[in-house]
Amino acid sequence: MIYLDNASTTKPSDSAIKAVCDAMERFGNPSSLHSLGLEGEKIVEKSRSIIASELGVDKKSVYFTSGGTEANNMAIFGCARALKKRGARIITSKIEHPSVLESFRALESEGFEVIYLDSDKDGRVDVCQAESAINENTSLVSIMTVNNETGIIQPVSEISRILHEKSAFGVMHTDAVQAFKKTDCSKAATGADLITVSSHKIHGPKGVGALYAGVNRLNALIYGGGQQQAIRPGTENVPGIAGFGAAAAETYGSCDKLYDRLKNQILANISDVKINGAEKYASKYVLNVSFAGIKAEVLLHTLERYNIYVSTGSACSSHKPEPSHVLKAMGCSADDTGGAIRFSFSSDITEADIDKASEILAKEIPMLRKYTRR
Amino acid sequence: MIYLDNASTTKPSDSAIKAVCDAMERFGNPSSLHSLGLEGEKIVEKSRSIIASELGVDKKSVYFTSGGTEANNMAIFGCARALKKRGARIITSKIEHPSVLESFRALESEGFEVIYLDSDKDGRVDVCQAESAINENTSLVSIMTVNNETGIIQPVSEISRILHEKSAFGVMHTDAVQAFKKTDCSKAATGADLITVSSHKIHGPKGVGALYAGVNRLNALIYGGGQQQAIRPGTENVPGIAGFGAAAAETYGSCDKLYDRLKNQILANISDVKINGAEKYASKYVLNVSFAGIKAEVLLHTLERYNIYVSTGSACSSHKPEPSHVLKAMGCSADDTGGAIRFSFSSDITEADIDKASEILAKEIPMLRKYTRR
Repeated sequence: MIYLDNASTTKPSDSAIKAVCDAMERFGNPSSLHSLGLEGEKIVEKSRSIIASELGVDKKSVYFTSGGTEANNMAIFGCARALKKRGARIITSKIEHPSVLESFRALESEGFEVIYLDSDKDGRVDVCQAESAINENTSLVSIMTVNNETGIIQPVSEISRILHEKSAFGVMHTDAVQAFKKTDCSKAATGADLITVSSHKIHGPKGVGALYAGVNRLNALIYGGGQQQAIRPGTENVPGIAGFGAAAAETYGSCDKLYDRLKNQILANISDVKINGAEKYASKYVLNVSFAGIKAEVLLHTLERYNIYVSTGSACSSHKPEPSHVLKAMGCSADDTGGAIRFSFSSDITEADIDKASEILAKEIPMLRKYTRR
Repeated sequence: MIYLDNASTTKPSDSAIKAVCDAMERFGNPSSLHSLGLEGEKIVEKSRSIIASELGVDKKSVYFTSGGTEANNMAIFGCARALKKRGARIITSKIEHPSVLESFRALESEGFEVIYLDSDKDGRVDVCQAESAINENTSLVSIMTVNNETGIIQPVSEISRILHEKSAFGVMHTDAVQAFKKTDCSKAATGADLITVSSHKIHGPKGVGALYAGVNRLNALIYGGGQQQAIRPGTENVPGIAGFGAAAAETYGSCDKLYDRLKNQILANISDVKINGAEKYASKYVLNVSFAGIKAEVLLHTLERYNIYVSTGSACSSHKPEPSHVLKAMGCSADDTGGAIRFSFSSDITEADIDKASEILAKEIPMLRKYTRR
């Protein structure tokens, strides 16, 4: 198997699996007053410390969630609603993940003034436009650290600085799900007040994420008992949190060489291809390529026959027939969007895997161009 | 170890642990278009079928969540907000779980007319009061199937019938977290349109629950990609869901004999005790006992020294110094509330365990009464 779909999800590491299993044996409810409860609480707090340390923040401001989607919702709704009376202008970009975009759309229908920033051709959110859009009434700006479809690193720290200069109470959120452990998404690097991370993108288990919330006010999205300072109640997902902590404690190896190798081989051996996003801004964990005249889904299934796994755009939107909103925002043509494949890396992929994948691409793409139509 | 705190959380069963571990090896994202994704999707759908079958409902209306707390929030906010224009009167009881009560309080501050029904001394929500409170503008009633502190079975089907007779669009929700697999909480038995269940109360892993939502309209609580019909987006917690399905497929053995044995021994051997809740309505998985003159937390830690684990009220509220809102609503005195211990059963407890626990209670309680003060 050559798994080139690590931006969709990753294989849990051995240490993550072990941590999950161990935590199911030590099964106390962290809220219980007895020692079994304390044991569960310790597991949770150990993981909280690891995540906090990776983000360079105080662990008291790290809340576990059911994943990146919930953490994004918690950040956006929680902040926008808490600050509505002070400022109802909230800003995001057209290339965010659906969990950010759909949250902003819902807030728009609640009466917020929402601005969706454009992306340039490089795949970067327009900083000049952000500068014009941000004013003294801006309560929230949400810009992802690394785009999930293109792997392009976004100008979060620049936009963060502008926001904090212009608005006395403005809060910066970054969805760092594709950046965590790969590209620096710490508080120091991003300047963000709210940071979303997720376990299953870094070889941890699915079903768990976290939000760093270094703000004084955040309305809860979910109400209940007193867990996690009542900001995110509900019995903690102890096994998932244990696995997330174990994964976050490991090094996520560089994939620069794998990225370069695949890109160079594709460019050398296949005609009419286009790399989506400017390499100078690439995180190098994702390579998004448009193969002219190819229907991406057909190519995906062709590669699958060789046990090679890739995706068309993001998994979250894969069952929708619409073209990628990210590539569209970057100004890609319908042909480029329709023929775009996302290759996403993990350091357990070998150079031989890359050579094999590019060899098959070079063989199959001319065939597909000849015999299939879009 | 004698674990008598199964209403807080349960030890995951071997089959649940195995299902979680297997699902981490088959790690595809259920939304991915390739076969690894399909494998993940199959795991999720198998569990969805099991839960649906246990509740006697269509699997298309079962949504996985991060637990009971989120499922309760999703039901209550989703339904109340969807129906606000048709009817803003919503009803619950004073003895619900905090995830229900706090959701209603939040809706109250959003402008909903909220009625909190009383409990009688038996620990049952007052049906006559419900009959008076429910009118043609009532959009939502939420009453738990079994109370988490007393184990008392609530008159859900009666209240459900009244609601559906009086309100053309009224939706009945029941928090069946403490009932699932123990007391019939199916759609047929409860008449509910929305049913909340949770994995970690039935020997499944923590961090996963489900909501049956047999309604046409439900506003989403969390926004994102297209997963779970966009009603509850976010990459599914495949390992957790697999473990939940495995646990739900098992039989949860009766605990009637254990309940009777412990109750009879306590009544026979210890003076000044009071069973909270009427036995004729008891689910018999929870026994709530007030020991006069005892501070419950001191007794909890005393029993812990013997490796016996119990709780004072519910785990979710255990770090709050306030007395139980449930016992208070039932009219218990401050002394009864302060000295209340919840024993909660699982069929892996033996009669010898019960004998040992009641022997230690009979020995320690007179000592505590003599040497400690409240």
